[in-house]
Amino acid sequence: MPLTAQQLRQFAEEGYLFLPGCFSEEEVAILRDEAEQIYRSGRQEVWREKTGAPRTAFAAHTYNEAFRLLGHHPRLIRPVEQVFGEQLYMHQYNINAKAAFEGDVWQWHQDYGTWARDDGMPQPRAMNISIFLDEVFPINGPLMLIPKSHKHGTLAAGHDTSTTSYPLWTLDPPTVTRLCAEAAPPGGVGIVAPTGKPGSVLMFHGNLVHASPPNITPYSRKIVYLTLCAVSNHITRFTRAEWIAHRDFEPIVPVDDDALMAYARAQCEAAE
Amino acid sequence: MPLTAQQLRQFAEEGYLFLPGCFSEEEVAILRDEAEQIYRSGRQEVWREKTGAPRTAFAAHTYNEAFRLLGHHPRLIRPVEQVFGEQLYMHQYNINAKAAFEGDVWQWHQDYGTWARDDGMPQPRAMNISIFLDEVFPINGPLMLIPKSHKHGTLAAGHDTSTTSYPLWTLDPPTVTRLCAEAAPPGGVGIVAPTGKPGSVLMFHGNLVHASPPNITPYSRKIVYLTLCAVSNHITRFTRAEWIAHRDFEPIVPVDDDALMAYARAQCEAAE
Repeated sequence: MPLTAQQLRQFAEEGYLFLPGCFSEEEVAILRDEAEQIYRSGRQEVWREKTGAPRTAFAAHTYNEAFRLLGHHPRLIRPVEQVFGEQLYMHQYNINAKAAFEGDVWQWHQDYGTWARDDGMPQPRAMNISIFLDEVFPINGPLMLIPKSHKHGTLAAGHDTSTTSYPLWTLDPPTVTRLCAEAAPPGGVGIVAPTGKPGSVLMFHGNLVHASPPNITPYSRKIVYLTLCAVSNHITRFTRAEWIAHRDFEPIVPVDDDALMAYARAQCEAAE
Repeated sequence: MPLTAQQLRQFAEEGYLFLPGCFSEEEVAILRDEAEQIYRSGRQEVWREKTGAPRTAFAAHTYNEAFRLLGHHPRLIRPVEQVFGEQLYMHQYNINAKAAFEGDVWQWHQDYGTWARDDGMPQPRAMNISIFLDEVFPINGPLMLIPKSHKHGTLAAGHDTSTTSYPLWTLDPPTVTRLCAEAAPPGGVGIVAPTGKPGSVLMFHGNLVHASPPNITPYSRKIVYLTLCAVSNHITRFTRAEWIAHRDFEPIVPVDDDALMAYARAQCEAAE
C-alpha cells in the first residue's frame, strides 16, 4: 500500500514513520528463528559485543532465504521507492540483536554520517527501514530518535572506536542536547522511542539522529535494518568489507507480497 | 495521610507503592538546586562514575538543611512507621544522580542483600523510599522493579566490584529471568518502571529486585533515597564508612508537614 500524502508530509517534517502491524506473526516467527541460528553460527558476518554476545549480523539476505525475501519485500521496497522516486539497491543489511542482559549501547549518531565518510555516498538518499522481530518495550533498549534532526544535514562527529565493539561516527553531548531542545514540545522531551509488537516497521531518514541504550532486561530486542539506497546515489569508496557496505548496485526487483508467508508455511510443513 | 488498607495490601503483594504528587514543585525545586551544589562540591560523600560525573551523594541530611528536613519529613517517615509498626532510624541516605549522558547502570540487586552482608542488618525491616527530583521518563534511566520478587527472601548474589564505580551484590541473569517470568502477566513483561513528575514518591521492600539502565539522554534523573530501618533492627557490623551506613540509631522525630515548604520560601526570600 503506498504511503499517503499525510504520511509523506510527516516523514518530511519529523524524519521518521512508524507502521505497526506490517508483517504477521507467522512471517516474523521464521525470521526470528533464523536470526538466532545465524547468531549461533561462526560466520564472519556476525559482529559480537565485547562480552561475546551477538551485536549484529550483516548481509543475511546473501546467505539466508527468509532474509533474502525480506530484503526484496514490496511492503518495504515500495514505500522507499516512493520517497526517493527511483529504484533502490541494498547498501547495508543488519540484524541487530540487542541481546538480553548483554546488548550494548549504540551511541548518538546519524547513519548517513558513516555512509558519507566511510563509503563516499554522495547524498543522504538512502534510508533505514527496520522490522521488529521481537516486541520492543520501553525497557529493553528501544531505538531513540530525535524528531526533525534530519533537517540539519550532516553534523560534525567524532570517530568512536572504543566505547563499544563497533566503530561509529558519534555526536557530542552539546549537539544532542541542542537538537533535543529544538525537538521538544512544551514541557516535554525531544526524543521518541517507538515501541510495538513484532512485525512493526520503522523507517527513518539517513540524517535522523538516533541511539539506543543497553538492554539490561531478560527480553531480547532483535530488529532487522535494511539500508536502501537510491541506485543513482551508490557509494564511491570501498573502505569497508563488501559484506558491510555492498557493491552490488543492481536495482532490487520486489518479490510477491505473499512470498515470505509462502516460504514460512513451506518450512513449517517440511518440519512436520 | 496514612496508607490505606488497599495500599498496604498492594505493598505486601507487589513489594512497592508509587505515590505521585507527594511533594510540590516549590518543595522539590530547592532540593534539586541544592543537590547540584552538593555534586559540584569536593566532598568525600560524593561518589563519582568512572567518567567523573556524580553517581550518588551520601548523607546529605547530615550537612544540608533542606535534605535534613526531607529526611525527617512526615510524608515519608509516617508511612514507613506504619508498615513496620515502630520508630525508624536513617540507615542510608543517597541522592542518586543518573547524570545526563553519563549516568551508569545499577545492576540487578536487592538492597537488603548488601545491608545484610556488609552491615549485619538482622532482618529486611528497612525500606527504600525515593523522591523524584527530576521528571522520570521511560528514556532517562528509570528504576526498574520486578514485582513480587521480595517474596523470595535474600537471593544468592555475587559481589561485583568492576562493572561500575560502585561495588554491589548483584544477581545473575538466570535468576533475573526466572523472577521476571514469575512476575509477568499473560503476554506481558515482569518488570515495571514507574515514571512521573518531580515530587513523586516510590517506596519498595528491601528485598525487591531492582536495577536501572544507563542514562544516554540529555535529561538528568536525580532521585533521593532514604533508607529507613526499624530501630530494633539496627545494623551490627561496621565495615563501611559511617557516612555510607549510619551508626546513629536514635529514632527520627518528624518535622512539621510544612517545614520544607517554609524553608524553601525563606531561602527564596533571602535570595531576592
